[in-house]
Amino acid sequence: MVDVNNTNSDYLDQFEAALEKIGHFLYPSDSPLHNAVKYALSVGGKRIRPLICMQAAEAVCGKPSQALQAAIAVEMIHTYSLIHDDLPCMDNDDLRRGKPTTHKVFGDDIALLAGDALLTDAFSILTSKEIAQSLYGELPSLDHIILQVQLLSKAAGGSGMVYGQACDLYWTGRVGAKKADLDTIHINKTGKLLGSAAALGAAAAGGTVDIINKFKEFGELTGLAFQIKDDLLDTESGTGKSIGKDAEAGKLTYATTMSRGESEQAASYYTSKALASLASTGLQTSRLESTAHMLLERTR
Amino acid sequence: MVDVNNTNSDYLDQFEAALEKIGHFLYPSDSPLHNAVKYALSVGGKRIRPLICMQAAEAVCGKPSQALQAAIAVEMIHTYSLIHDDLPCMDNDDLRRGKPTTHKVFGDDIALLAGDALLTDAFSILTSKEIAQSLYGELPSLDHIILQVQLLSKAAGGSGMVYGQACDLYWTGRVGAKKADLDTIHINKTGKLLGSAAALGAAAAGGTVDIINKFKEFGELTGLAFQIKDDLLDTESGTGKSIGKDAEAGKLTYATTMSRGESEQAASYYTSKALASLASTGLQTSRLESTAHMLLERTR
Repeated sequence: MVDVNNTNSDYLDQFEAALEKIGHFLYPSDSPLHNAVKYALSVGGKRIRPLICMQAAEAVCGKPSQALQAAIAVEMIHTYSLIHDDLPCMDNDDLRRGKPTTHKVFGDDIALLAGDALLTDAFSILTSKEIAQSLYGELPSLDHIILQVQLLSKAAGGSGMVYGQACDLYWTGRVGAKKADLDTIHINKTGKLLGSAAALGAAAAGGTVDIINKFKEFGELTGLAFQIKDDLLDTESGTGKSIGKDAEAGKLTYATTMSRGESEQAASYYTSKALASLASTGLQTSRLESTAHMLLERTR
Repeated sequence: MVDVNNTNSDYLDQFEAALEKIGHFLYPSDSPLHNAVKYALSVGGKRIRPLICMQAAEAVCGKPSQALQAAIAVEMIHTYSLIHDDLPCMDNDDLRRGKPTTHKVFGDDIALLAGDALLTDAFSILTSKEIAQSLYGELPSLDHIILQVQLLSKAAGGSGMVYGQACDLYWTGRVGAKKADLDTIHINKTGKLLGSAAALGAAAAGGTVDIINKFKEFGELTGLAFQIKDDLLDTESGTGKSIGKDAEAGKLTYATTMSRGESEQAASYYTSKALASLASTGLQTSRLESTAHMLLERTR
C-alpha cells in the first residue's frame, strides 16, 4: 500500500527543487523585485495547489513532474493574490502564516509590484518551452498549452478569483447575504484556483477535455470545502492569523453566518461532491482523494 | 497617396467597436468590477498601442483586423498599469487625462482588483478561440498564439514593465543616477509594452520571428522616445496631469536630469534608431513610420 504522506513529501520536495531552479529564471538579485518575490514565494505555504496539480497529472497516467511547470504558475498566482489581499487597502493584514506580510517587510509599493510581476510572469512560465525542457524534458502539445492559459486566466481573473475578492469586499460590513452569496465568494475566491490546479495538472499530462473538466470540478468543490474549514479555523488559534480577524473585519464567512455544526456539515457535503466528480472519471485517483480528506480534517 | 490621419481614425474606430463588443465578454453589469473596468478602459487614452499593433499586422501583409484581439489584450495591460500606478501607494495621482483616476471614483480596493482583473484577463482574451472567431473569423497558428503570450508576458512582467516601475520607485528621491539608469526605466516602463504591441500585431498576422523581433525593437525605441517626450510635456500644460508633478515627486526623468535641448535630441535619436529597425525589414511600413513621427512631434 502506498504511504500517502511519504509520497506527498516526495512531490513537495520535487516542487521546491523546481521552484528554486525556476527562481533563477525570475528576477536577478539586483532587481528591486528580487527579495520581495523570493520572500513571498518562500514564506512556506502548504503548497496545496502544486500538490493537487502533480497528483492530477499522475491520475491521468502521466508523471508528476510533467505538472511542475503548471504547479509553479498556479503557486505564483496564489502568492500574488495573498500579497495583494494583505495590502492596507484590502484586508490590511500584518501577519501571514505567522510571519510579517510582504508589504510590512518591503513597503506597499514594492509589494503591489511584486504581486503584479508574479501574476504576469505566471503566464510566461506556463508557456515557456525552455522551462518545459528544463523541468520535464518534453513540451505538452500546443493545444494543451493554450488550454492551460485559458484555464488559469479564467480561474484567476475577473470572472474567477478576482471576482470572488470583489464580492467579498462588497459583502464586508453589509447585511442580508444569503448562503448562495457566501458560496459565490468561496467558489470564486478559493475554489476556482484550486480547480485550475487540478485541471492544469491533467492538461499538462495530456488528459482529455472531459477528464480535465471533471478534475476542475473536483478542485472547485474541494476549494469550497477548504474555505469553509478556513473560516472555522479563523475562530481558533494556530493558523498564524489573528484569531477572529474575519468577524472583527465584518467579513461574510461561514463561521459568522451559521453554526459550527452547519458549517462542518457543509464542508463534508462539498467534499463528498468533489469525490463524486473524481469517481465519475473511472481513474485511479486515491492520492487526490486523500488530499481532499486531509484538507477537510486539518486542524490548522 | 494614403491619408494617414484618416486611416488612423479608421483603425481606431475598428478598435473601439471591437473593444465594445469584447466588453460583453468581460464582466456582467452586476459584478462589482463592471463599472470600474469600463471606466478605466473608456477614459479615452490615445490608443497608441492598439494603433501600432494594427499597423504592424498590415505591414506584414495581413489585415489590421487580425490584430484586434492582440490590440485589446495590450490595451488591457496598459490600462491595468495606469490604474495601479495611480494608486496612493504608488504615484498617488488624482487625475489622469484630466479625469478622476479609477481609485478616486471607485475606491482603492476596487481599483486594485480592477487592475488585477484586466491584467489576468488580457491573457484570456489573447488566447480565446471564440474571440478570434468573433473579431476576425480565423485563428492565428497555435505557435503564434503561444508566441504572443510569451511576448506580452515578458514585456509586461517583472523583467519588463513592472521592472521599469520598480526601478522608477528605486530612483525616486535618490541621487547619483546615470543616463543609463534613466534609459533602463523608460525602456522597461514604456518601451517594452509598446514593443510588444508591434510584435504582437506582426505575430497575429503570421509574421516571421525575424520580422517580429525587428518590430519589437522598433516599438521599444519608439516607446523610449515617447517617454522622453512625455517627460518634457510634464513640464508644460495640456497633458491633463498637474504641471511639474514629476519634479515635485522627486522622479528621475529626462526633464529633471538634462536640458530641454539634450532631451529633444535624445528623443530624435531614438526615433531614428526605431525607424532604422523598421527599414531593415524591407517591408512597406509607412504607417508605422508616420506614427513614430507623430509621437515625436506631438504637443500633448
